[in-house]
Amino acid sequence: MTKPLRIVKIGGKLINDPKELDRCLVEFDKIEGDKILIHGGGRKASEVAEGLGIPVNMIEGRRITDAATLEIAIMVYAGLINKQIVALLQSMGINAIGLTGADGDSITSVKRPVTSIDYGYVGDVSDVNHKTISSLLNAGLTPAFCALTHDGSGQLLNTNADTIAAQVAIAMSNDYEVTLSYCFEYKGVLLDINDPDISIATLDYNAYVAMRKDGTINTGMIPKLSNGFDALKAGVEEVAICGLDNLLDHHGATILAI
Amino acid sequence: MTKPLRIVKIGGKLINDPKELDRCLVEFDKIEGDKILIHGGGRKASEVAEGLGIPVNMIEGRRITDAATLEIAIMVYAGLINKQIVALLQSMGINAIGLTGADGDSITSVKRPVTSIDYGYVGDVSDVNHKTISSLLNAGLTPAFCALTHDGSGQLLNTNADTIAAQVAIAMSNDYEVTLSYCFEYKGVLLDINDPDISIATLDYNAYVAMRKDGTINTGMIPKLSNGFDALKAGVEEVAICGLDNLLDHHGATILAI
Repeated sequence: MTKPLRIVKIGGKLINDPKELDRCLVEFDKIEGDKILIHGGGRKASEVAEGLGIPVNMIEGRRITDAATLEIAIMVYAGLINKQIVALLQSMGINAIGLTGADGDSITSVKRPVTSIDYGYVGDVSDVNHKTISSLLNAGLTPAFCALTHDGSGQLLNTNADTIAAQVAIAMSNDYEVTLSYCFEYKGVLLDINDPDISIATLDYNAYVAMRKDGTINTGMIPKLSNGFDALKAGVEEVAICGLDNLLDHHGATILAI
Repeated sequence: MTKPLRIVKIGGKLINDPKELDRCLVEFDKIEGDKILIHGGGRKASEVAEGLGIPVNMIEGRRITDAATLEIAIMVYAGLINKQIVALLQSMGINAIGLTGADGDSITSVKRPVTSIDYGYVGDVSDVNHKTISSLLNAGLTPAFCALTHDGSGQLLNTNADTIAAQVAIAMSNDYEVTLSYCFEYKGVLLDINDPDISIATLDYNAYVAMRKDGTINTGMIPKLSNGFDALKAGVEEVAICGLDNLLDHHGATILAI
């Protein structure tokens, strides 16, 4: 029988507040067996960019990762946030190891082609090295990924953390029975943004497509749901959108279905 | 028979210039078999600190690692420099993995006690987890360490890269026949600073102590030599002070002797 593996993605808002981040790690600690943490960026990168006088580069409402912005992403995501998370996990007795996609050649990506927009140093995941990640897990280590990948030719690239979570989950399904949890500030996908207590218990793909069409789904949810459905279709056992309180058991979370 | 392991420390001046750094990695690439890279900080941390308006905190001529300075060290050492080195090594076909001492609980340190000087967030190495480092090497990975360790209670600490190199070399001597190379901008310890072509072939401990006493040794060399002799005394097979051109064969380098 295949071994279970839990993959947990924690988002920006949970990372911005040190107390919330601590709570994330305490809940992550409760998960037994093999597990992987994936974290987004948070506000700190903007603070550092502002401090250094590097302007946010926007084209047609999209944030562009120019060379200076990439340097800050590397410093803040792979440096400050990732290593502080690793040190905190270690203090809880979790033998964490912090990674970008360059480390162990674990996640390769392709620089997004320039069309009407040049996104700059942004990479779309092309390959996840599940053997290396498995060998780390087998050595008793808990990988903690930040949202950076590499192109294999020496270039680091900014990559969406929700996508990384889904792609790692898909690749790890070769060796494990994978449960993927997108953990954010609500307990699940809300029916009504004004009522945070009621979430959709099961969201199936057709309903998602319909809700996306009629604009019922909050645009901020789309990367999680779109990547989540991709993961489910590609063999991931369970995908849930959840909060911190129900990360462990997914009770009251939104479970995706196809 | 014990397997050979090469440990190479590259210093600040070699890291400041992208071309020199490339040359470092090209030479490192030529080393066959198991190897570990350890890198210092370089000028970038000062540039970022200056950019963010964080003053250099000096007490009695010693640089103090206050909280803001530590944040920058984490961003620049563990983020920018370490991950760019890892991405470049990957592009050469070396399956590198970038680490602080917190990653895999590989290097634990103790915050330096406050005496007449409070050095701030500086750690003195107390333990190197040679089993975890060996398991990474056995998985075909090449560890690349930056100059940060952790105290096991969630705190990252700034640690001298020369000391990290020596302590990792000593710990790895449990499993390997270790050669430690301190690689810098000259081919070895110079007899005369004005003649970079002539270096001391063998430097024995008593001669070093005498030269240190009479001030013949450049103070900048002392951390390398002091740590190097510690490593040699503790079972490291060979310790050399060398340049890039003689990193591979130590020809013309200064070999330490006890």
